[in-house]
Amino acid sequence: MDDLVLVPWEQNRQNAPEGLRVEVYSADEGDPGNLDEVTFYVLPYWRSRGPELLERMPKLKVAQTLTAGYEHVLDLLPSGVTLCSGRGLHDSSTAELALALMLSAQRDLPRWAYDQREHRWAPDRDRSLADSRVLILGYGSIGQAIEKRVLACEAEVVRVASRPRPEQDVYGIADLHSLLPTVDIVVLVTPHTPQTEGLMGAPELALLRDDTLVVNVGRGPVLDTAALLAENGRVRAALDVTDPEPLPAEHPLWDAPGVTITPHIAGGAASFYPRARRFVDDQLARWARGEPLANVVREG
Amino acid sequence: MDDLVLVPWEQNRQNAPEGLRVEVYSADEGDPGNLDEVTFYVLPYWRSRGPELLERMPKLKVAQTLTAGYEHVLDLLPSGVTLCSGRGLHDSSTAELALALMLSAQRDLPRWAYDQREHRWAPDRDRSLADSRVLILGYGSIGQAIEKRVLACEAEVVRVASRPRPEQDVYGIADLHSLLPTVDIVVLVTPHTPQTEGLMGAPELALLRDDTLVVNVGRGPVLDTAALLAENGRVRAALDVTDPEPLPAEHPLWDAPGVTITPHIAGGAASFYPRARRFVDDQLARWARGEPLANVVREG
Repeated sequence: MDDLVLVPWEQNRQNAPEGLRVEVYSADEGDPGNLDEVTFYVLPYWRSRGPELLERMPKLKVAQTLTAGYEHVLDLLPSGVTLCSGRGLHDSSTAELALALMLSAQRDLPRWAYDQREHRWAPDRDRSLADSRVLILGYGSIGQAIEKRVLACEAEVVRVASRPRPEQDVYGIADLHSLLPTVDIVVLVTPHTPQTEGLMGAPELALLRDDTLVVNVGRGPVLDTAALLAENGRVRAALDVTDPEPLPAEHPLWDAPGVTITPHIAGGAASFYPRARRFVDDQLARWARGEPLANVVREG
Repeated sequence: MDDLVLVPWEQNRQNAPEGLRVEVYSADEGDPGNLDEVTFYVLPYWRSRGPELLERMPKLKVAQTLTAGYEHVLDLLPSGVTLCSGRGLHDSSTAELALALMLSAQRDLPRWAYDQREHRWAPDRDRSLADSRVLILGYGSIGQAIEKRVLACEAEVVRVASRPRPEQDVYGIADLHSLLPTVDIVVLVTPHTPQTEGLMGAPELALLRDDTLVVNVGRGPVLDTAALLAENGRVRAALDVTDPEPLPAEHPLWDAPGVTITPHIAGGAASFYPRARRFVDDQLARWARGEPLANVVREG
């Protein structure tokens, strides 16, 4: 027997192409059997267990993560194994949370929730997302998914990426300082690299107009936590990622004025799962037909 | 002197066509002068004062509300006066709040807000709006604005109106009972009429699957409050309008499980104002040129 494929969901086993031997391994139970026969391994999602099994799979040809990041796998990956990432699987859920955080902040939902607890009916005029100018810092596939939602809400988008792409109306990072004072909302959706660490620091926050909203659904260290705290509510923030992360119970960011925190839940909502299952189905079909795999990040 | 026009905002005075005499009356100060010269009256927004001035304007030709509803003006309107409504001016702000309420409920924002107060970092899997099946009950201009936003979030829309319009994929109210068990979210955005009162009552709520979300941005009496309370959290609700309204401090709806309340703030957000000012500018231009007015609901 050979070509044992490990998949995280029963659906993938049922939909697997003819001729592939497939077992489900979700890391909820003990070790899968026959590690020495595994040739295609889809790492379980949300589990710290999983990557270390790579070293016990001598026949492995392909490792597939369900996360966009794959740094945690690289060091354990034997040479000769092709690595594929889960890039794109979280676009919908992440863009959705970015939109939810923008709308909640603009429409004052925390205020109305507080009034509800106090049984107080006191209507007042809200901000809106419509007519806002929204700078999306990081214009990859998630940035584009955010843009689509923001445009449907009648807001304006300013696209900024590491390098300018004038043909797509994308500004480069060199334009960031001149753009920051012109916008109502900044959405951070960049990966964490040496270039993006602290990209929104004290000088950048100082350029924002009063009451500007900073949303971070990228990586915590892109926004300088100390600089945000020093703003003391002059700018607002809605953060799904923080620095440090997880945020310790005693950290002052929890109670900072104008700051809303969600615990890094952007990508893992219900809509991730059907997209991930379909992707695994399609990837196995490509593998069985000998076609090029999608999302290859390291050739074996 | 004649043709005195009363407008609510200074912008309208500045943009008024040549030859029109225009004064600003926002109801924040005392009575406007020269009531007996007013021929075109834009009623102030958000003010209970305003309609009763109609009876003191003998030369009035046009009354313009900034609300979509105009029932509060009809009884005071002298014969021979044309009445125009503010239909459409709240579409963007109302659809935006409907979306905000859907996203907040699906992505569990109240739960994360509670965890933030407790300094607790405990990620978990959320529902999503993406992939949800959203029934929009009331498919007028606000319903269409909601649809546009919901589709951008990768959710599916089921259109229901008082009468079926098969050519637009709009179901009629006769199909409601068969559709209710098939959806994840119901958005109520109908006016209050004898036909819509209690449209979502005990039988309709009983047809919903567990955990279905009911959003009401239409009128309170369309949803039967007692029936919702009897569901006791089996279905969730996010209500910008209530019955009774305003909701008295002692009402049990404030603390009902799974119920979120905002105090009828959907329409009056920041994005209403520029749309209303532009509409008044355009309406005065039509008036000055002798063109047909927009949004006429009663001919003079």
